[in-house]
Amino acid sequence: MSHKIAILGASGYTGAELVRLIATHPGLEIAALSADRKAGQPMGAVFPHLRHLDLPDLVTIDQIDFDTIDLVFCALPHATSQAVIRTLPANVKVVDLSADFRLRDPAEYQKWYGKPHDATDLQETAIYGLTEFYRDAIRDARLVAGTGCNAATGQYALRPLIERGLIDLDDIVIDLKAGVSGAGRSPKENLLHAELSEGTHAYGAGGTHRHLGEFDQEFSAIAGRPVQVQFTPHLIPMNRGILATVYVKGDAAALHAAFTDSYADEPFLVVLPMGELPSTRHVRGSNYAHISVVPDRRAGRAIVFCALDNLAKGSSGQALQNANLMLGLPETEGLTAPAVFP
Amino acid sequence: MSHKIAILGASGYTGAELVRLIATHPGLEIAALSADRKAGQPMGAVFPHLRHLDLPDLVTIDQIDFDTIDLVFCALPHATSQAVIRTLPANVKVVDLSADFRLRDPAEYQKWYGKPHDATDLQETAIYGLTEFYRDAIRDARLVAGTGCNAATGQYALRPLIERGLIDLDDIVIDLKAGVSGAGRSPKENLLHAELSEGTHAYGAGGTHRHLGEFDQEFSAIAGRPVQVQFTPHLIPMNRGILATVYVKGDAAALHAAFTDSYADEPFLVVLPMGELPSTRHVRGSNYAHISVVPDRRAGRAIVFCALDNLAKGSSGQALQNANLMLGLPETEGLTAPAVFP
Amino acid sequence: MSHKIAILGASGYTGAELVRLIATHPGLEIAALSADRKAGQPMGAVFPHLRHLDLPDLVTIDQIDFDTIDLVFCALPHATSQAVIRTLPANVKVVDLSADFRLRDPAEYQKWYGKPHDATDLQETAIYGLTEFYRDAIRDARLVAGTGCNAATGQYALRPLIERGLIDLDDIVIDLKAGVSGAGRSPKENLLHAELSEGTHAYGAGGTHRHLGEFDQEFSAIAGRPVQVQFTPHLIPMNRGILATVYVKGDAAALHAAFTDSYADEPFLVVLPMGELPSTRHVRGSNYAHISVVPDRRAGRAIVFCALDNLAKGSSGQALQNANLMLGLPETEGLTAPAVFP
Amino acid sequence: MSHKIAILGASGYTGAELVRLIATHPGLEIAALSADRKAGQPMGAVFPHLRHLDLPDLVTIDQIDFDTIDLVFCALPHATSQAVIRTLPANVKVVDLSADFRLRDPAEYQKWYGKPHDATDLQETAIYGLTEFYRDAIRDARLVAGTGCNAATGQYALRPLIERGLIDLDDIVIDLKAGVSGAGRSPKENLLHAELSEGTHAYGAGGTHRHLGEFDQEFSAIAGRPVQVQFTPHLIPMNRGILATVYVKGDAAALHAAFTDSYADEPFLVVLPMGELPSTRHVRGSNYAHISVVPDRRAGRAIVFCALDNLAKGSSGQALQNANLMLGLPETEGLTAPAVFP
Repeated sequence: MSHKIAILGASGYTGAELVRLIATHPGLEIAALSADRKAGQPMGAVFPHLRHLDLPDLVTIDQIDFDTIDLVFCALPHATSQAVIRTLPANVKVVDLSADFRLRDPAEYQKWYGKPHDATDLQETAIYGLTEFYRDAIRDARLVAGTGCNAATGQYALRPLIERGLIDLDDIVIDLKAGVSGAGRSPKENLLHAELSEGTHAYGAGGTHRHLGEFDQEFSAIAGRPVQVQFTPHLIPMNRGILATVYVKGDAAALHAAFTDSYADEPFLVVLPMGELPSTRHVRGSNYAHISVVPDRRAGRAIVFCALDNLAKGSSGQALQNANLMLGLPETEGLTAPAVFP
Repeated sequence: MSHKIAILGASGYTGAELVRLIATHPGLEIAALSADRKAGQPMGAVFPHLRHLDLPDLVTIDQIDFDTIDLVFCALPHATSQAVIRTLPANVKVVDLSADFRLRDPAEYQKWYGKPHDATDLQETAIYGLTEFYRDAIRDARLVAGTGCNAATGQYALRPLIERGLIDLDDIVIDLKAGVSGAGRSPKENLLHAELSEGTHAYGAGGTHRHLGEFDQEFSAIAGRPVQVQFTPHLIPMNRGILATVYVKGDAAALHAAFTDSYADEPFLVVLPMGELPSTRHVRGSNYAHISVVPDRRAGRAIVFCALDNLAKGSSGQALQNANLMLGLPETEGLTAPAVFP
Repeated sequence: MSHKIAILGASGYTGAELVRLIATHPGLEIAALSADRKAGQPMGAVFPHLRHLDLPDLVTIDQIDFDTIDLVFCALPHATSQAVIRTLPANVKVVDLSADFRLRDPAEYQKWYGKPHDATDLQETAIYGLTEFYRDAIRDARLVAGTGCNAATGQYALRPLIERGLIDLDDIVIDLKAGVSGAGRSPKENLLHAELSEGTHAYGAGGTHRHLGEFDQEFSAIAGRPVQVQFTPHLIPMNRGILATVYVKGDAAALHAAFTDSYADEPFLVVLPMGELPSTRHVRGSNYAHISVVPDRRAGRAIVFCALDNLAKGSSGQALQNANLMLGLPETEGLTAPAVFP
Repeated sequence: MSHKIAILGASGYTGAELVRLIATHPGLEIAALSADRKAGQPMGAVFPHLRHLDLPDLVTIDQIDFDTIDLVFCALPHATSQAVIRTLPANVKVVDLSADFRLRDPAEYQKWYGKPHDATDLQETAIYGLTEFYRDAIRDARLVAGTGCNAATGQYALRPLIERGLIDLDDIVIDLKAGVSGAGRSPKENLLHAELSEGTHAYGAGGTHRHLGEFDQEFSAIAGRPVQVQFTPHLIPMNRGILATVYVKGDAAALHAAFTDSYADEPFLVVLPMGELPSTRHVRGSNYAHISVVPDRRAGRAIVFCALDNLAKGSSGQALQNANLMLGLPETEGLTAPAVFP
């Protein structure tokens, strides 16, 4: 029997990606799609690549009868997300793709997002959605907070190393290369093709990017002491993909062993042989992440790489993986299609 | 029970695309992958996006025991293809992705491919693989000849119109825009990123492109008289996709009606409402084709568009669709994943 | 001695392109740059590639003292352009890059631009800015109307053929591939990198694109009878460049001879040997256009190609070439830099 | 009076870039162009963007009469370069764009390039071609060794900081993003458009990239002690451009002051205001480099950025700048054209 789901904020890229993934999922039925400004339109008019699917038309959120819904994917902007989720019936499970429930400390939320949190009671029940590290809690959760796509990438490259005490916690540099779909579908001059193609630049450098809040929270919790990484994202002229290049001080062989051990049973985390270099092209459109370790020429230093698709494993794929767990379905259902290359 | 298949020429883009599509197909098992120059390597070394799959290593063709194989996908170069296929056991079904069995007249083969055909007996048994128009024959065929990707695109835009006598047969112009993966994976200066990105140009202009042989054969057969279209392909800086812009003389409303009627029950041919314009982005990675009609400002003239993915619907997706028919499987199995956008 | 010029609408791509070209022009001095919404900012903040130049800050138009200006480049939107130009002192020469003065018949202007022309007196004095065909009139003009970039490309491929009566006037198809910078710098969803890269689609198909007004006007005037071409522009994932593929009925050798003869003394129109195919990459960033002819396999039919850079030869380069003529400077001054390839 | 120059290896990208830059240089005349495998062809056949120029046809090196040549640009592969340069007449000045004369210590050459140096006598006379730091020696040199393009970018971001003792020499990380033209024009599978577009990956990670030899040599010499940076280049789907993201430990304000002071009179090194982030798009096709400093959220750490065009400032532009000095011409001649954006 199918579980009925709704996608709120279906006119953005993560909403469309959810529809794409669920289209071949045997256990889920899309019962409602919301998009306030595009309510009344068929989904296929907003995303023509989905036009052959039999989908409900876009509606406003208040037109949805949530009593018939088992699980809601909430792909709304932060702040909006918490306002909407607090109005949902308690028996509806929620996977939130916004930033609203990622940070457990409301002070941290205010620091990074510039406004007080308005649903701190809900926050206390939310589980951080990095599946591989919160799997059991996610299974029982009512509300799961999808991680930042950059935050997920960096964590896959670092968590096992911090957990095992294998690296110097004071000298971690995450240099990240991100595709443009992560910036969303809202029209902005700096996101135009003519502005972005054929070049690259950094943004949010120097410790201002909001995903640092997640790094700080998670890495400090694992280490049992404050950890502050250095983090510089760059925009790359590609639509999908994140590559994290992480500079650490530690023994490369030990790091590689930590990954092969920690991720041995993970269906979506692929550890490459020592020295091989991942490419975002090889995970494009898929829920897989490729992780690798390269020793530096100076002993005691190494570079860790992680490549994943920001819309899939970094966001909507992760959300579906979590939803599968929350609904008691096989965790990998609908998520095993290989990357689209070239 | 699974059918066992082999892919010959698995180190090219169409071979990899077959593996990608079959990876989520419940009724097929990949029993052998060949690639002469890369024999001995794991498929994941040649195509890292497939490295998480449990696949047989690449072998030479003579290492394959074809007695255990139900169907072979032959993704070898033309000329090589006919030499190999003639050596296969008679009970093995074959879907050939090369040009070797597309042209029924050996003289036409020699004209377009510059050498005599060496397997004319096999040629006589081959069925042209444009599924929607040869479906019944494909079901019973032992050997199906996959169409040219450009040839498929142009035919989807024209066959129903010629069949119904709706257009002037002497004034058909096919202006085609093709992605670069259609040119293959062999290193050539003119296919380098630095040569191809950020620009466009025509190639094979003036009636020299080999896919004209297919247009001539098929359109003349339908019309019952010689038909020679004008055809100019252009290389576009995109990896996947073909857009055919077809200029015809005929009544736009009648043309549109012909498509909606002819393609009404087709699972993969999506006819857009009159005047809507397809994009290759909306079929990328999928087996769907989008077809549309736009009336010209001058009565009696129209433009027909067809967009599809050259590696999927134009080649490996088509091949799998045909294999499904040949093996008695549901025609759409493994092929219904929506396009990857953006 | 330097001539002083002003650029109105300097925050768009054509404005920036004018500054780029004039930066190495020995006879022109940029005395004023306007951009209403960005007034007060340095040009280098709006276009960082120009930040090392010593340029006046952006101002509003009414802050400019036009008495000190010899020539104005007006890169404003249509309708705004005519309103501004009518207020300029009569002794200031004007090169308008908008569509406002391209169409000599006010009824045609209203038809294509949807509103009445408000400066028909000025229109009567304007010279159409396709340099090679209006050179003498441009030299003496006070107001020159820059052509549409697509319109320029199509005309370079057709004017000599129509003038000499070499082609069938009723069967002309212009299939055009255009780079995205032609759509401007205003933020729109359909111009985002994630929407445009890695794919192609047509727009304004079926005779609705405004540049048809220019084709109709010019070709009909040359032919001495109404000429209506078929014209389909496509958006290509490249920032600069236009390639026109023009299908005509005529003798290819005669067409090629017409070009080599007509363009023999043209500094910027390069006729390729018969059968060679131009690429937009080879004119990128330059004021050169490459023109070629390919015979079709059917006698009496041919394909004509023209490639140019929409921002340079198609717009700002053309404007500078015209300004050189109007100011009595060498026509090619500041315009001879080769294309930037790769 | 013009100086006569020859370009050896003119069929590669750096050779073509030299021709492009020299085309608008008033003081240089291209007297000979060599390309062994393409000898006999016009340059315009090999690089159609240069076809309108009046250039000598390509010849073999032994067909050039070097007695009439004032200066040779040698754009040959390493190893070949030293063999050719040792045969040139002593009165011919040479700017070498290969790696052959960059490393002063023959043991270092052997270490990084895998074979002994065969012209160590010439090596002793060669001047390292980073113009801004070797200007006086370059003026008097007979042989100047053009730097690696990555090596130039990293040095612009670090030399003043090391010279002034402002950063921790043991913790320098250079994460570099490079355009694909730096990999040259030879056909290789991994440089195909279908392999490179729409994604990113690192290469030569872990201290294996040859440009490390230059970093080691130069930084150690400045510091007066061994300095080994960590260096990871990444291939970005753009044709031109390098962005270096350099992580250092030092006071951001002091670093920024060091740049504004050191580069105050440099015509091509543009220091951005503190915190602004450069883009490769804003230097594309130009000889300018943009340098900036961003403080990290943790005091005592900073990120330094440098963006330049690998073919221009990183290679052929640098070569021309050096040639100007060697010939007693104005240093900036032919090099002041702004970047081509978009």
